[in-house]
Amino acid sequence: MSIIGIGAGNPDYITVQAIKALNETDVFFVVTKASEKQDLVDLRMEILERYVEPGRDYRTVALPDPERDRRADAYRSAVEAWRSARADLYESAIRDHLADGERGAFLAWGDPSLYDSTLGALDEVRARDGVQFECEVVPGISAPSALAAQHRIGLNRVGRAFEITTGRRLEQGMPAEADDVVVMLDARGSFRQVSDEDVDIYWGAYIGTEDEILVSGRLRDVADEIDAIRREAKERKGWLFDTYLLRRRLPAEDGSG
Amino acid sequence: MSIIGIGAGNPDYITVQAIKALNETDVFFVVTKASEKQDLVDLRMEILERYVEPGRDYRTVALPDPERDRRADAYRSAVEAWRSARADLYESAIRDHLADGERGAFLAWGDPSLYDSTLGALDEVRARDGVQFECEVVPGISAPSALAAQHRIGLNRVGRAFEITTGRRLEQGMPAEADDVVVMLDARGSFRQVSDEDVDIYWGAYIGTEDEILVSGRLRDVADEIDAIRREAKERKGWLFDTYLLRRRLPAEDGSG
Repeated sequence: MSIIGIGAGNPDYITVQAIKALNETDVFFVVTKASEKQDLVDLRMEILERYVEPGRDYRTVALPDPERDRRADAYRSAVEAWRSARADLYESAIRDHLADGERGAFLAWGDPSLYDSTLGALDEVRARDGVQFECEVVPGISAPSALAAQHRIGLNRVGRAFEITTGRRLEQGMPAEADDVVVMLDARGSFRQVSDEDVDIYWGAYIGTEDEILVSGRLRDVADEIDAIRREAKERKGWLFDTYLLRRRLPAEDGSG
Repeated sequence: MSIIGIGAGNPDYITVQAIKALNETDVFFVVTKASEKQDLVDLRMEILERYVEPGRDYRTVALPDPERDRRADAYRSAVEAWRSARADLYESAIRDHLADGERGAFLAWGDPSLYDSTLGALDEVRARDGVQFECEVVPGISAPSALAAQHRIGLNRVGRAFEITTGRRLEQGMPAEADDVVVMLDARGSFRQVSDEDVDIYWGAYIGTEDEILVSGRLRDVADEIDAIRREAKERKGWLFDTYLLRRRLPAEDGSG
């Protein structure tokens, strides 16, 4: 079984290693979420059409992702329950659709090691001993790397640390120990919670695609603009993936690091 | 001018976007460091030979990287002085070797946005107004992504933050705000400084290459082993690139997250 990182948006983000893995796969398990629009399924199909060699046979199996309880107070336990339900689904899909000697694969947006639950769910399936398989992970271009490339900036400043976190955690404020913070999975625009701090933001949505939107500037100056763009884009397309870097302005420099 | 991320070790980590950029480049600026062995120059040449289409003309220009003062007390100012010297070098190389209308490129290990100074140096060159060019950044598979893929783990735990830092900063101890820390650029094996903490380590050297070495386990149990491997490998090959994740064991779980 392979978990193949297909990169964060641009089909050209795919690696040679991923293309080789696609061409060794017999069955692609395509996880679909209720909240996800057809666009995202199409994008994965486009990857297969573009990179799997003509004449190579493969099958796709759609896996409708279990719903998750998104209330704040139940966050962790809800995630655990959802992972377990997901493992049930994966286990039966693997048992029912993958014949002996065949190779299966899951496609992961961006990089499978960053806020992606596929690996955790497959570890859970393996721990159950119901179906036997080895896992291979193919790294992909992550959303933070793509964001930094499109803004032509580094994620870290010279000799300094940075943090990667979620919108939910950012609501507690900027970390004290890191002056550069990349925020992923922020459904609620949590950057607004820290707009009293003197930070710059480098924000991007639909990064690497033809719908890409980039905004950067002092957070307090551009927060309203980003907020409006987010609402408009979400309404127009039905979904929004955004990622951003918050960069605290430090004494004795102008914030450009 | 392009800064092309070529991925962290495995030539198959290269992306389709990077291959296209290689094939649009007239002049490759190849930065060589005094401390770097011929292996690393060879690896970049191998990338060009493998992915630039036969018959396409290109030139390579070697840029011997200025020496940097590595004493701890002068760290930040030494880095600034070295970046400036590097900008001098890049500026004259671009002026002398790149004709009007030609495209130049720098190849960056891993991802150009992570602890790579090329972008900063080129920004400095552009700010001087001596030579005019636009910069394009092509993201690459970063060392942390490659490390996680080879160990088949996630970099974050569910809903949690993680930090990316340097060996130098780790010497001050594990951060309080992050329980998962990826350490890059650790020439001195700084993980030894935190071996009193109850953490797991996922360590890798020469990741993605045929010399790859992976070790994982409770830090206090494997620190000596990793230390010995590091010294032996450095002596045998003359250079060592390693990256690792430190994962604090949390109450109510066994550390597997």
